[in-house]
Amino acid sequence: MTGAQLSVAFFLQMFFILAICRLVGVMARRIGQPQVVGEMIAGVLMGPSLLGLFLPEIQKAIFPEESLKFLFVGSQLGVGLYMFLVGVEFNTQLFRSRARSAAAVSISGMLVPFALGAILAFWLVKVPGLFSEKAKTFEAVLFLGAAMSITAFPMLARIIYERGLTGTALGTLALAAGAIDDAAAWCVLAIVLASFGAGAAVAVKAIAGGIAYGVLVLTVGRQLLRHLGAAAERAGKLTPSLLAITLMLFMLAAWFTDAIGIHAVFGGFLLGVAMPRGLFAAQLQRQLEPFAVVFLLPMFFTFSGLNTRLDMVNNAAMLLIALAVLLASCLGKGGACWAAARLNGEDNRTALAVGTLMNSRGLMELIIINIGLQKGVIQPPLFSIMVLMAIVTTLMASPLFECVYGRHARRTGKLGLAPADA
Amino acid sequence: MTGAQLSVAFFLQMFFILAICRLVGVMARRIGQPQVVGEMIAGVLMGPSLLGLFLPEIQKAIFPEESLKFLFVGSQLGVGLYMFLVGVEFNTQLFRSRARSAAAVSISGMLVPFALGAILAFWLVKVPGLFSEKAKTFEAVLFLGAAMSITAFPMLARIIYERGLTGTALGTLALAAGAIDDAAAWCVLAIVLASFGAGAAVAVKAIAGGIAYGVLVLTVGRQLLRHLGAAAERAGKLTPSLLAITLMLFMLAAWFTDAIGIHAVFGGFLLGVAMPRGLFAAQLQRQLEPFAVVFLLPMFFTFSGLNTRLDMVNNAAMLLIALAVLLASCLGKGGACWAAARLNGEDNRTALAVGTLMNSRGLMELIIINIGLQKGVIQPPLFSIMVLMAIVTTLMASPLFECVYGRHARRTGKLGLAPADA
Repeated sequence: MTGAQLSVAFFLQMFFILAICRLVGVMARRIGQPQVVGEMIAGVLMGPSLLGLFLPEIQKAIFPEESLKFLFVGSQLGVGLYMFLVGVEFNTQLFRSRARSAAAVSISGMLVPFALGAILAFWLVKVPGLFSEKAKTFEAVLFLGAAMSITAFPMLARIIYERGLTGTALGTLALAAGAIDDAAAWCVLAIVLASFGAGAAVAVKAIAGGIAYGVLVLTVGRQLLRHLGAAAERAGKLTPSLLAITLMLFMLAAWFTDAIGIHAVFGGFLLGVAMPRGLFAAQLQRQLEPFAVVFLLPMFFTFSGLNTRLDMVNNAAMLLIALAVLLASCLGKGGACWAAARLNGEDNRTALAVGTLMNSRGLMELIIINIGLQKGVIQPPLFSIMVLMAIVTTLMASPLFECVYGRHARRTGKLGLAPADA
Repeated sequence: MTGAQLSVAFFLQMFFILAICRLVGVMARRIGQPQVVGEMIAGVLMGPSLLGLFLPEIQKAIFPEESLKFLFVGSQLGVGLYMFLVGVEFNTQLFRSRARSAAAVSISGMLVPFALGAILAFWLVKVPGLFSEKAKTFEAVLFLGAAMSITAFPMLARIIYERGLTGTALGTLALAAGAIDDAAAWCVLAIVLASFGAGAAVAVKAIAGGIAYGVLVLTVGRQLLRHLGAAAERAGKLTPSLLAITLMLFMLAAWFTDAIGIHAVFGGFLLGVAMPRGLFAAQLQRQLEPFAVVFLLPMFFTFSGLNTRLDMVNNAAMLLIALAVLLASCLGKGGACWAAARLNGEDNRTALAVGTLMNSRGLMELIIINIGLQKGVIQPPLFSIMVLMAIVTTLMASPLFECVYGRHARRTGKLGLAPADA
């Protein structure tokens, strides 16, 4: 395909992606689900699990082979920028304000699903076709552990914000615990990816490079970045030059973490955490979020969906594995978080709500398993099972939350309105 | 290259592009030039005219062959979205308020450069290697005519806005005349592209399709789009769903006009003109412009610069042609507009200012000649000469404007501050 043909194909493809993602998203919101659930499902529908199964010619026409690389790069940019913006919103103060409960919930919400994931991995690593043949047992264990203990942190933050729970015990607790869990899970993933590289030198490069990057960005980097914040305050806005510098730094961060063998999302997220707060952060969100969330993220959901082959989960053995993964993830995450919150003196309703919110995997799970697939740790069948798990746990969150907390809290005036169009 | 390698290369490439464009842009602003001049020059510097000439290995490492298609698609999206936003800002009221002068200036500013361009084309079409061998004389004449009579309309609008001239005689006159000229030039270009397609059927498809699209979008489309505006007013903001619908429509418009053989920028621009005004337009600008202008447009400048081969303008004959093109464009556009404004009773200072502003070609010229190169109407040497002309006329605009109008107007309090960071 020439560049001109590719750009014609791109415009049509993006129309299709935006239309399907929005359509399924609207349907999801009709039944009380967040937009992200709809887009996760939309991605799967556009892939070989539905469109490719029934209308393979149309699917090929909309997603010609050569355009997939382009879709991949766009989706990498999308999740990278998205995680950067999550980092910009990240509130490190939260750790301090409710430390004990948060520590207990997050440690349980990490260790229990990690342990269950690890046990599962010992079994699944022997089933052919799930993990890559190159994957050693400890890598499989660590990867599945990390994938099980992840939380849809940005989604959690959004639900809490939209329902007006930001200042409440529940909100603070869930946010702090979710943040700690996600940070830990990403660290484990970084170790897996580093170890999965070819040989010790590559692993050392990844681990040492990653640590050096993190330390540098969060210390010296944060200090230097303050100048950007001050410049924005002086100008009274985020000028195009400041935005350009920020995007340059993001590109550099994404390139560096990608090049040393971890992943662009790490670079983006840590850079976001180090960015100045206040006017600068608020305007950065306002200027980048619409395009990143509405335009680029659907590319990611679609790319992820194109790799999801639900037709591979078509026999008793695979269904059993899918069920075991789902059960382990719900019991491990939701159950453990509820128990930890109860043991730390939260009332039952709050504890149940924390468990429900923490159990939702959302976009984060898709990101982590896409990295696993892309780097060759897992293979399409296990990837598809994990996609199912991510969708089901995310679908469960809203109705369960309503059931155990929302309805009651709204009756007693403790909760704001239902989530708006997001 | 695998998708993963391509995305690593992309992050590094974008860092480089953003850095060079911003750097040269800042230097341009230091000497009183607008950012866009800097980015035009930055693109040329990154191409074979400088970086590729002296450091070919580094240039190849930053811009690997396979990444160029990606850069092309990104740049098409960038100019398409940019022209869409220009359309959204386009004020059709302007035509009415100062119709007579505007008509005179715009008709002279169109006919004279068109005539000079046409005369040049009769000569240049005989010089081998400038126009494509497939190009018939009348196509060469129309193309060069259109390319000569183009005005940097969005830049003109920005200069007028930034200097606080929006409501003045000069501002209204230049804006209205510039808008009419650009619209006419794009129509001529559409005819050239349509005729340049293989055979009559293709030309009919392009012309009929283009007219049908334009009529449909500006009548029925505009009516239907009002609902989007009303929905935004009801919600008090441009919700993500409304933004997604707008982007979907843009993709469809870009795809359609690209597929029928004119160009995505037409589809984008006309759709933008048809978009509802008020809150909707303001928020659309705010949500899309930062990313489109700061991130995507530099991709276009770079792609354009990678095609610019100033080393081909290296002998007396070529330099003579370049000089003739430059003289014809300045006399034809600047001179004719000044004369027309004088004849319509504007004072000399205002008339000179109008001529100066109208003479600047800016980004618009780059867009039109890139289309010409991409569709095979012109070849690299003529393309490079036209890039030079675009840069020189754009460089001239700011100091000349200061000289003939700005300094005096500022002394007499008729002018706002110098342009801010844009």
